[in-house]
Amino acid sequence: MNDGFAAWWADRHRATRFEVRRIPFAKLDRWDFEPGSGNLAHESGSFFTVEGLRVRNDDRRSWSQPIINQPEIGILGVLVKDVDGEPHCLMQAKMEPGNVNTLQLSPTVQATRSNFTRVHRGGTTRHLEHFAGSGRGKVLVDSLQSEQGAWFWHKHNRNMVVEATAEVPEHEDFRWLPLHRLRRLMRRPNLVNMDARTVLACMRFTPPEDAADPFTGALVRSYRARSGLHTTAEVLSWLTEARTRCDWRTRLIPLGEVSGWSRTDDEILHDEGKSFRILAVEVEAGNREVTRWSQPLLAPRGKGLAAFLTRAVDGVLHLLVQTRLEPGLRDVVELAPTLQLSAGDDPGDRPYARELLAADRGRVRFDTVMSEEGGRFYHAQTRYLVVEADPGLPPEVPEDFRWVTVRQLMDLLRHGHYVNVEARSLIACLHSLW
Amino acid sequence: MNDGFAAWWADRHRATRFEVRRIPFAKLDRWDFEPGSGNLAHESGSFFTVEGLRVRNDDRRSWSQPIINQPEIGILGVLVKDVDGEPHCLMQAKMEPGNVNTLQLSPTVQATRSNFTRVHRGGTTRHLEHFAGSGRGKVLVDSLQSEQGAWFWHKHNRNMVVEATAEVPEHEDFRWLPLHRLRRLMRRPNLVNMDARTVLACMRFTPPEDAADPFTGALVRSYRARSGLHTTAEVLSWLTEARTRCDWRTRLIPLGEVSGWSRTDDEILHDEGKSFRILAVEVEAGNREVTRWSQPLLAPRGKGLAAFLTRAVDGVLHLLVQTRLEPGLRDVVELAPTLQLSAGDDPGDRPYARELLAADRGRVRFDTVMSEEGGRFYHAQTRYLVVEADPGLPPEVPEDFRWVTVRQLMDLLRHGHYVNVEARSLIACLHSLW
Repeated sequence: MNDGFAAWWADRHRATRFEVRRIPFAKLDRWDFEPGSGNLAHESGSFFTVEGLRVRNDDRRSWSQPIINQPEIGILGVLVKDVDGEPHCLMQAKMEPGNVNTLQLSPTVQATRSNFTRVHRGGTTRHLEHFAGSGRGKVLVDSLQSEQGAWFWHKHNRNMVVEATAEVPEHEDFRWLPLHRLRRLMRRPNLVNMDARTVLACMRFTPPEDAADPFTGALVRSYRARSGLHTTAEVLSWLTEARTRCDWRTRLIPLGEVSGWSRTDDEILHDEGKSFRILAVEVEAGNREVTRWSQPLLAPRGKGLAAFLTRAVDGVLHLLVQTRLEPGLRDVVELAPTLQLSAGDDPGDRPYARELLAADRGRVRFDTVMSEEGGRFYHAQTRYLVVEADPGLPPEVPEDFRWVTVRQLMDLLRHGHYVNVEARSLIACLHSLW
Repeated sequence: MNDGFAAWWADRHRATRFEVRRIPFAKLDRWDFEPGSGNLAHESGSFFTVEGLRVRNDDRRSWSQPIINQPEIGILGVLVKDVDGEPHCLMQAKMEPGNVNTLQLSPTVQATRSNFTRVHRGGTTRHLEHFAGSGRGKVLVDSLQSEQGAWFWHKHNRNMVVEATAEVPEHEDFRWLPLHRLRRLMRRPNLVNMDARTVLACMRFTPPEDAADPFTGALVRSYRARSGLHTTAEVLSWLTEARTRCDWRTRLIPLGEVSGWSRTDDEILHDEGKSFRILAVEVEAGNREVTRWSQPLLAPRGKGLAAFLTRAVDGVLHLLVQTRLEPGLRDVVELAPTLQLSAGDDPGDRPYARELLAADRGRVRFDTVMSEEGGRFYHAQTRYLVVEADPGLPPEVPEDFRWVTVRQLMDLLRHGHYVNVEARSLIACLHSLW
């Protein structure tokens, strides 16, 4: 498709100078381990801190781990406008220190409060005026959505889609992409970043009614279906039940009190090599003006996996969601993909693991590796998978699973803290399938 | 109205033996100040703890206070059934140590997890089988709703309304009340308890279309109105904006680190006599079998106030809600009444204080003092007020206020953490006005 995207993207790569080097913690600039708590913090008190988390589960077993605490809410915003009847999204070529490939396609605005209150002492955030203040456009999506509950403490960001009502000046790092084009780009590995995916997941689409095959037909009906196997009230009640049943107690503790983890000169790591490491990097970025900074990042031990099993019920595609416990989530329990694995997790005895991972190629509808937030995570990649269930799969599901329609999930996305970030990424992937 | 309610209620009072005595902390049975933290906790680790809370606000000023931490989720459930076409609610005459008047009208089930897992070593919770497990009835309401953000840390309870699908054995402490009767009882001081009010607030009613006067007409239309001054999406976006703007950082700290408060033999109190006190009581209860226990309670310094200003817009009653910050709320900001005061707060410069507190009697539609949860709070009373705005009131409102319909609030109540407990109590009061 020769619409200039490839040329623009190559051009952005050429224009970008970005160097990321791992450094020992002692070389971090204005970041330090606080005396007493041992928390890793910036001297301004801004950005984020690496602290400890203690969890006591229902059996009163307890464990602890490092966790990123970033209480301030950022804006992830996509600006849209209609061109010749097709919605276009203003996307940004943005580099992040943790990206495996430097540049990824990002929302129009991706700004922490520190960004917009200028703790960075850098420039103001471009295009922010369309999302905040008196010049704001027409708000189409606006909700607080959670992020990785295994790595972040109670983090949520403001997911916004805004229709531009004022002139938008051109800039080389930004490009208006027709929606159909953007949806296709979802299938490229490590291109559409996590922040873009979570916002796109919340966007209300009207897919066309005509479909090339039965799967696509069932999928587009799933966006429109007024009812499904369960009512939304039933789904909410089932989630409430799971939240009530869960008796995990979670709380922040000083990083120095985390047990089973050690700190070396340049890493905080699990004594048995599990989960992730905390490390430090120095960044040099820019083309004309050079910016330099250093910061900690969380590096998972390998690729994660997030997979939806799907099946048509009365011609309407249903997705199999589970209620999943993650210690950093505000309510501990949110709706998650059918199967969600972190690096090192053994899929062995997980429900539906075989069905998903050993499926015939013909039933695999989406299979792409994409990246998690490169501003906080180092080379964090997840394999996103959508698989049609074998027609012979028994319809009964375990108590912590339910079949729901795309529309039901989209309705829940008007509110925060129902659908976890891995499931939202997968919903963005589904958007690319029609 | 001679339907036997008065006789039953008087009878329950006669049958009830309940003695509550204040005691010094040292006399608490199995409750103690933990070495190190100074937190006041039960030796089993169950029930709740009194800990410290530190808040740092947007100006980076910080303060601390004691707070009740009760992470487990309880069930507040009302069982309903249809009798001759009218919904009836199974209400309970229940005593709580903090009640000003011993007995209050309570939900069918009011059970903490400690209750139903039998940490009390007492009997099982009566009627719980209609709300949990395989014998559950038809679920009409099921959501996790917050409680007092000034006194509780991240507390929420499961609010349920369930239609009975199995036989309900009679018991002297329980009585089926027709909905119209229950609604009228809302106007009696200190009768319908907080837990009943919050559940009743979430119940979906269909008020009759005929109305005696213009106020009632506008009120019942407000339950049905498909639109209001703002769309629900606009209201949610405004709330998201308030949550994003708020940069309060809150966290639990050891009670021993709270500053500006002191502990005597029998009280934890603010050095300037503000807010509330923590005290201890010994309880002796029962008729045939006598139960004895002791526990801490939080005693506010005087009555609180919660008031809705209302006005008809195009014949549809609108309520003036505000986005209010409370340090113990999970998201800090929820929708609150037009005016919400704790004991000792000066209404002086609060928006709409004069309009509400100096209104002509003819504009005051509801004005009753009711109690907050007597299982945790000692003699905590709030004046609930609904006032019609003077027609001359300017329609513009400050940025943190919005006019919304009853239906919009009822729709938000399908989800948790949007409408605070004081506003929910007031919604239950509104239900009594048609």
